[in-house]
Amino acid sequence: SRSYGRDVAIIGAPFKKGQRLAGVEQGPRVMREAGLIEKLRDLGHNVEDRGDLKFEVFKDDPKNYVLNPKAVGSAAKKVSKAVEQAVRDNKLTVTLGGDHSISIGTIHGHAQAEPNLCLLWIDAHADINTPLTTLSGNIHGTPLSFLVNQLKDAIPWAALTPFDWLQPCLNITDIAFVGLRDLDPGERYILQKFNITSFSIHEVDRYGIHEVIARSLDAVNPKGDRPIHMSFDIDSVDPAVTGATGTPVPGGLTFREGMFIAEHVYRTGLLSALDLVEVNPEVGSRQDKANTVMTAVEVLTACLGKKREGNLQPGYELPMP
Amino acid sequence: SRSYGRDVAIIGAPFKKGQRLAGVEQGPRVMREAGLIEKLRDLGHNVEDRGDLKFEVFKDDPKNYVLNPKAVGSAAKKVSKAVEQAVRDNKLTVTLGGDHSISIGTIHGHAQAEPNLCLLWIDAHADINTPLTTLSGNIHGTPLSFLVNQLKDAIPWAALTPFDWLQPCLNITDIAFVGLRDLDPGERYILQKFNITSFSIHEVDRYGIHEVIARSLDAVNPKGDRPIHMSFDIDSVDPAVTGATGTPVPGGLTFREGMFIAEHVYRTGLLSALDLVEVNPEVGSRQDKANTVMTAVEVLTACLGKKREGNLQPGYELPMP
Amino acid sequence: SRSYGRDVAIIGAPFKKGQRLAGVEQGPRVMREAGLIEKLRDLGHNVEDRGDLKFEVFKDDPKNYVLNPKAVGSAAKKVSKAVEQAVRDNKLTVTLGGDHSISIGTIHGHAQAEPNLCLLWIDAHADINTPLTTLSGNIHGTPLSFLVNQLKDAIPWAALTPFDWLQPCLNITDIAFVGLRDLDPGERYILQKFNITSFSIHEVDRYGIHEVIARSLDAVNPKGDRPIHMSFDIDSVDPAVTGATGTPVPGGLTFREGMFIAEHVYRTGLLSALDLVEVNPEVGSRQDKANTVMTAVEVLTACLGKKREGNLQPGYELPMP
Ligand SMILES: [Mn+2]
Ligand SMILES: [Mn+2]
Ligand SMILES: [Mn+2]
Ligand SMILES: [Mn+2]
Ligand SMILES: [Mn+2]
Ligand SMILES: [Mn+2]
Repeated sequence: SRSYGRDVAIIGAPFKKGQRLAGVEQGPRVMREAGLIEKLRDLGHNVEDRGDLKFEVFKDDPKNYVLNPKAVGSAAKKVSKAVEQAVRDNKLTVTLGGDHSISIGTIHGHAQAEPNLCLLWIDAHADINTPLTTLSGNIHGTPLSFLVNQLKDAIPWAALTPFDWLQPCLNITDIAFVGLRDLDPGERYILQKFNITSFSIHEVDRYGIHEVIARSLDAVNPKGDRPIHMSFDIDSVDPAVTGATGTPVPGGLTFREGMFIAEHVYRTGLLSALDLVEVNPEVGSRQDKANTVMTAVEVLTACLGKKREGNLQPGYELPMP
Repeated sequence: SRSYGRDVAIIGAPFKKGQRLAGVEQGPRVMREAGLIEKLRDLGHNVEDRGDLKFEVFKDDPKNYVLNPKAVGSAAKKVSKAVEQAVRDNKLTVTLGGDHSISIGTIHGHAQAEPNLCLLWIDAHADINTPLTTLSGNIHGTPLSFLVNQLKDAIPWAALTPFDWLQPCLNITDIAFVGLRDLDPGERYILQKFNITSFSIHEVDRYGIHEVIARSLDAVNPKGDRPIHMSFDIDSVDPAVTGATGTPVPGGLTFREGMFIAEHVYRTGLLSALDLVEVNPEVGSRQDKANTVMTAVEVLTACLGKKREGNLQPGYELPMP
Repeated sequence: SRSYGRDVAIIGAPFKKGQRLAGVEQGPRVMREAGLIEKLRDLGHNVEDRGDLKFEVFKDDPKNYVLNPKAVGSAAKKVSKAVEQAVRDNKLTVTLGGDHSISIGTIHGHAQAEPNLCLLWIDAHADINTPLTTLSGNIHGTPLSFLVNQLKDAIPWAALTPFDWLQPCLNITDIAFVGLRDLDPGERYILQKFNITSFSIHEVDRYGIHEVIARSLDAVNPKGDRPIHMSFDIDSVDPAVTGATGTPVPGGLTFREGMFIAEHVYRTGLLSALDLVEVNPEVGSRQDKANTVMTAVEVLTACLGKKREGNLQPGYELPMP
């Protein structure tokens, strides 16, 4: 089974052009400043911080169904390359966002190295609008539509040349959503039409977080033999806890439910790549920022083995007088 | 089954004399200003806003077991007439409070048109003191005692002539309480003596909100064939979420549990009349006011079909390039 | 079964030397000022407030594995004597902390009079470090190691002469922990090695608070025939509710879960002694102080029979007109 320490790669993706609010690009910095790397090393992991990706800036990037297509297309490609490389280096790959558009890259890159991956999307939003159904034009609300085979024909690829590099790499049945509570009509249609495994907050209230995450994994990873990609949007958690985020929605997961998901996924031993996105330290109060960054770091460390019940140090001996 | 859009009537009951705090009469205004009518129309409902009722002012209204008997008796009569008319017009009737004394009127009026109704009372308080057991003298703590047949003899009707128009119209077994956590001795006695279906927060902790609301409906509406009156006091929800209310009590329902109750009741298709009471924008901080009004509006829209999992637009077609 | 009123003794233990923060010694005062004694008398109990213990001050108290050994050893002895006396006086003995080091005394004293007691330790921390495993040197993180037979040989008694009076008096299998979420490596080792009944917040998320407290009692009090000592550290509850405490840890019990534990333990009729510790009114905001003290008093009154569903007054008669 899982040896205690893992080889972990941290990739910073300080990207904000998938939405309109400045500050989300500070995510990688504030999570590192909160001691993320040290806390992961304290767990016995061999952590390599591969630093922050540099993204191309486009002066002329006119909207075409979606905003900033060039910026997002180019950034996602870079992220994809970086994540693919890290996974091929046998690293548990943690990508720090940045807005959720970066997951076009993290999932695509991960899938090149692990085509059999399954995806846990933990988020208040489904982010599966197509460029034609999005109401806001923000690509952070559309990443999954670029990635799933079943929506290939619904994407205006001809108008989105900055995404030419991208091949859909995911079956819609390989996705499980947890935490949903704010969907656009097109997203509800897509979830229903393709019978996607999805647990909104209604189901978390109804069945409890254990049942929900267990059913999610049963649905997308029944034999427990597929690598897991978890894309954790900090706005899945309630804004009273994680208010420093671009699109907060009331009635979210509790801090404890976020930690439970992380601990449960860690215990599978199958976590292969992990995104922590949408932390925006420039939104909300100082308290919101502190709680949001703390929660992000706690969830990440729990995904990598930190247990609330306490971690047994291998080979620990009780000191005697 | 339920056709998508419903005929809905909104009745404003800006009344405060059932208790002592000014501001609760602003409830109808602040809920409308928060976009309640538009949000209900967005759900496909045919919403008729019947405006605010005007209540008689009494210079001389001396306490007689209870405070402001003339004001409350006259207001409740007006509310009753308005609700009865709206229900007879086949409208799902939503009454915006105002303090909980208005429910003497809403339930009485509803019962004239739907004598077979059952009642869900969602509240930190049971509000079933009689004029002789009330400790505060505030009629918003006694509305149910005026309405239930089993307490007919416990009401000093002779001293309460402003309520002469009122005939008890409810069997105590047709009531289910959810969210209780602050009862006076007389109320505990009454609940126990008549074996009333009641789930305090202890039971919500014990069984979970799904089990509690399912059992409540099983108890008062076993065959699912009775119209439902839901009287939702915003102080049922925890004051950390809905602090802008006259008698906040710690340890209340979470925002999610409030939404779960609303979604569950909507799905029965039997909701016939609904009160949303005790929102007082002049209590607590600006943040309390904003969260309380937001929660009230979210609960109301969920009672009328808004789903956290997202609403499927009838006849929606996925736009293709 | 339990007659309604009980003989209750309140002992104030305004002690802070088991940790480094001033203010925790104000716990007894602020809980009394919040009306604790009156609220317990309202429940029909015969409450004797035995006032605050006076603790010896040591100018020269050098660290020896742990901080303030003389001060803590002497204070714990005094607390032990006071609690033993009160239990022998057939009083349900409530000790108001002060930091959690006082529980060396409360449990030792209680055990002299009730050797067959079982212990519920409700806390974010296990407080079972030995003087050799403690990282902070604060004795409030080590009280249980002084008390359990299985760790007798792990304590450097020779270096801790201020504890000469103390005989371990508890089997480690007689302890159940609830609420854990911040353990040191030595504590995780001890819990695991001796297979101690312990429910971290992970298990509360997993099973729910009812299942957790029921299993705790089943484990340490299967036949329901042993007196219960409950040591309730206010930091078991989430810092968003009880922030006025020395070592807050995110993701704690909710207010409702704290109340549920108290109500459940009361219903056993076996509660014999109760500690409420770590309330520090000088930590956090004014709001933190108010909520923390309120929660402490609400938990204490629930431990002594106050019910959220309302208390039936024995012999109550419904007044009729
Ligand atoms: Mn997202
Ligand atoms: Mn989101
Ligand atoms: Mn009420
Ligand atoms: Mn109320
Ligand atoms: Mn403690
Ligand atoms: Mn503690």
